[in-house]
Amino acid sequence: MLLSIDKSKKETIFDQLVNQIKSLIESGDLQEGFQMPSTRQLGVSLGVNRSTVIRAYEELWALGYIESTPGSYTKIRKRKGLSKEILSTHHRESFWDELLTGAYKPDYDKLKKFSQMVRDENEHLISFNRLEPDSRLIDVKLINTCIREAMANSEHNIFGYCNPRGYEPLRRSIISHMRLHGVNAGDENILITNGSQNSLQLIFQAFISKDDYVAAESPTYSMLIPLIKYYRCKILEIPVTESGMDIDVFERFLHKYPVKMVYTMPTFHNPTSVTLSQGKREQLLSLCEKHKVIIVEDSIEEEMKYFGKVHLPIKSIDSHGVVIYLGSFSKILAPGFRIGWIIADKECVNRLTALKTIFDLSTNTFSQIVLYRFCKSGYYELHIRKFLRIFRKRMKAALKALKTYMPADKVTWQEPLGGFLIWLRLNVKADKVDLEDHFQTFGVKIIDGNSFFYNPPNEHYVRLSISKCNEEEIEEGVKRMVKAIEVLE
Amino acid sequence: MLLSIDKSKKETIFDQLVNQIKSLIESGDLQEGFQMPSTRQLGVSLGVNRSTVIRAYEELWALGYIESTPGSYTKIRKRKGLSKEILSTHHRESFWDELLTGAYKPDYDKLKKFSQMVRDENEHLISFNRLEPDSRLIDVKLINTCIREAMANSEHNIFGYCNPRGYEPLRRSIISHMRLHGVNAGDENILITNGSQNSLQLIFQAFISKDDYVAAESPTYSMLIPLIKYYRCKILEIPVTESGMDIDVFERFLHKYPVKMVYTMPTFHNPTSVTLSQGKREQLLSLCEKHKVIIVEDSIEEEMKYFGKVHLPIKSIDSHGVVIYLGSFSKILAPGFRIGWIIADKECVNRLTALKTIFDLSTNTFSQIVLYRFCKSGYYELHIRKFLRIFRKRMKAALKALKTYMPADKVTWQEPLGGFLIWLRLNVKADKVDLEDHFQTFGVKIIDGNSFFYNPPNEHYVRLSISKCNEEEIEEGVKRMVKAIEVLE
Repeated sequence: MLLSIDKSKKETIFDQLVNQIKSLIESGDLQEGFQMPSTRQLGVSLGVNRSTVIRAYEELWALGYIESTPGSYTKIRKRKGLSKEILSTHHRESFWDELLTGAYKPDYDKLKKFSQMVRDENEHLISFNRLEPDSRLIDVKLINTCIREAMANSEHNIFGYCNPRGYEPLRRSIISHMRLHGVNAGDENILITNGSQNSLQLIFQAFISKDDYVAAESPTYSMLIPLIKYYRCKILEIPVTESGMDIDVFERFLHKYPVKMVYTMPTFHNPTSVTLSQGKREQLLSLCEKHKVIIVEDSIEEEMKYFGKVHLPIKSIDSHGVVIYLGSFSKILAPGFRIGWIIADKECVNRLTALKTIFDLSTNTFSQIVLYRFCKSGYYELHIRKFLRIFRKRMKAALKALKTYMPADKVTWQEPLGGFLIWLRLNVKADKVDLEDHFQTFGVKIIDGNSFFYNPPNEHYVRLSISKCNEEEIEEGVKRMVKAIEVLE
Repeated sequence: MLLSIDKSKKETIFDQLVNQIKSLIESGDLQEGFQMPSTRQLGVSLGVNRSTVIRAYEELWALGYIESTPGSYTKIRKRKGLSKEILSTHHRESFWDELLTGAYKPDYDKLKKFSQMVRDENEHLISFNRLEPDSRLIDVKLINTCIREAMANSEHNIFGYCNPRGYEPLRRSIISHMRLHGVNAGDENILITNGSQNSLQLIFQAFISKDDYVAAESPTYSMLIPLIKYYRCKILEIPVTESGMDIDVFERFLHKYPVKMVYTMPTFHNPTSVTLSQGKREQLLSLCEKHKVIIVEDSIEEEMKYFGKVHLPIKSIDSHGVVIYLGSFSKILAPGFRIGWIIADKECVNRLTALKTIFDLSTNTFSQIVLYRFCKSGYYELHIRKFLRIFRKRMKAALKALKTYMPADKVTWQEPLGGFLIWLRLNVKADKVDLEDHFQTFGVKIIDGNSFFYNPPNEHYVRLSISKCNEEEIEEGVKRMVKAIEVLE
């Protein structure tokens, strides 16, 4: 067997052995079934330590080049080569598409947009597009303290699996926090999830089948739309008025269709930031109790009440358990922790927990324990108050800037009572313009209102989010928007 | 209006006002439409600061007890009461069950078992039941260092959303780590998930429909079984021999049924800890290439190779991209971080990423960045070597203890090449015995082998996991098992 070991080479003797034998096999010089010399023989003949030869043989065995049966000699075996690179996947798109169950073909471009959005920001651009807390406002020291406490407190097994329903102390903290919003829940009513999107998916997966009727405000949360499409249910679009969803339209739907679920954001609705009046909250609830319709109440911006009067969640007056309330830490603390929660009827929670368990066993333990410490120490309430103080100012600055600079004939909006969003209607003919690209060329990122409609309308809307911008950035951003709008007809 | 404010009371004036007016309304003494005095009048008549009255009115408004139209007086309105407690949910079980889509009725008891398992351990019991790293072996200092680095390195926006495909630097770290296992992947081939269960769910959700044929070893990973049941596919059970799954049986299945997917754990199979021979790996791959069957290769214990020779994953010789490889940090580092990964054909990854995005937007950013630091700094490789060193000893200790103490006539097993599991066959008639309860009464927790069978056999098996036990605990645990077995006939 032609092996030459050169001890002066950089390549280790082990590597030289393995590589030379491999290439002899691959070149065909060593045929299948060829009997390899014993490790002792080879060691002697090459003047190489036997243990090195043994390791080399083991490596070749692991790679599938040789086989050895106890007591007998080692032989060359035919093997598949390691796949150097994955072959061109062209012909395989169809392969996977055929496998894809159901009619769902994801809209890769739309979804790519989302992943682009989370890329590192370009500091020359002002981001009115992202509905995500300004990480500059997060008190890293406090979070560090919580992490240190959590790590020190080893008993909690911060590295282990967690109860599928969520970390029990965090469940308690959330429940007592919800009391501040008039929501009276017991431990059997809560499930902690990987954020509100995960909550929504579990609800759709559990309760919605093909062709079921689901009602939602139009416009609505943009990431609800791919879920509606994926689960192939029928959407009933409820127009949004100054006082929230048009209940009369919803009632007409109830008489016309077997509505199964209504998804709503009654407080600081995304994207319009309209708030549903108390009267309508009660009407909506009574209608859904009467017609046995689930209400999914998404209230991720609940806390951000700047201007006095805002109502309690619908869940607070839900005595029949038809409301599934969705909460989250993502919109005012840190989406990176991916922690949200569901508060619902016990039987509903049981069913969703069963799904959650077989879908991902349990939610991130580390995040849950850190957030528990953050709540327990009172930091969360402090953080909320700080956000309220700061964003009340920022929202005022935003509204002032809009009033000051926006051409009243071209742009109209409704002043929100809270939250981070302002919904602008553009009275322009810009049908051939990609609004997001257009505004970006003027140095400001926004989201085209069309993203929030299942069936986009003819008017042009823009969602402006101030959640990541301070007052200077807001004023500058509005000025840039004005320039961008001026050139639109 | 009969209000009496007592400044000497503990209850604040604000609370006294709100509560007294509330109860007057609820008692009916204040009727709907009643015109409330102006805040100034009431302040004067009660000798209370007006701002307090204003706040009280705002609170009552938010609670829905009063309404005020700009410029006019404030009036009492009828409202629904807050739901004091959720009503008895008895009659509602059926309500939610009717809503539950599909035929799936989760097995709550089985799932509860899982959540009980993750409860805090009882230190008097020895836990051979949990397949989870011994958290005593985790170097908390190193992880702390990584967390500090990650937090300091603010640019990464550790608190924000992450790319749905996963944190890019972590993707790179995993890809280069996979090279050590002969797996050659590019960035387009990886998706980071919330652990392997989440990976599995995405695969089933995307590619498996009702009545599809899915093959798997029997016994198999216990949490695969509820997924099979939930997605209502047909399972084809492949017996496990000393050298892994019985390929001949699988081939017969291929001729008989349109098999869509085969799930396998070729290395240290859970629960039997058998390893699939290289020859069979290549046979399996060729068969699946020929019949266009997806191979889901679950290799969460890949790293734990104690006794020399173990083969590379099937993925390493997959040049047609039919293998979907599942990896995870849960089995040798920390399940609490809930981070796993999928390595597969680009087109497959695109489709799974699309689902992942609409299901939970993105995986936990914090965990991903911390794990990236842990890999980048070389700590992960160190950690693996440490685990190898320690568990090689522990596995030897376990096998020695079994040889020494187990009654050979009643218990048989195959010695594993690695991993954390030993699969014991009990030659006893214990049909009426709950094995888990039985062993627990002798102070040791195990898992009844039946949990790993879709159709439980007549024989009795027990899965013994040493992943959370040191050598002393292992010996003591085995002794307790012996006592428990002796009393079985």
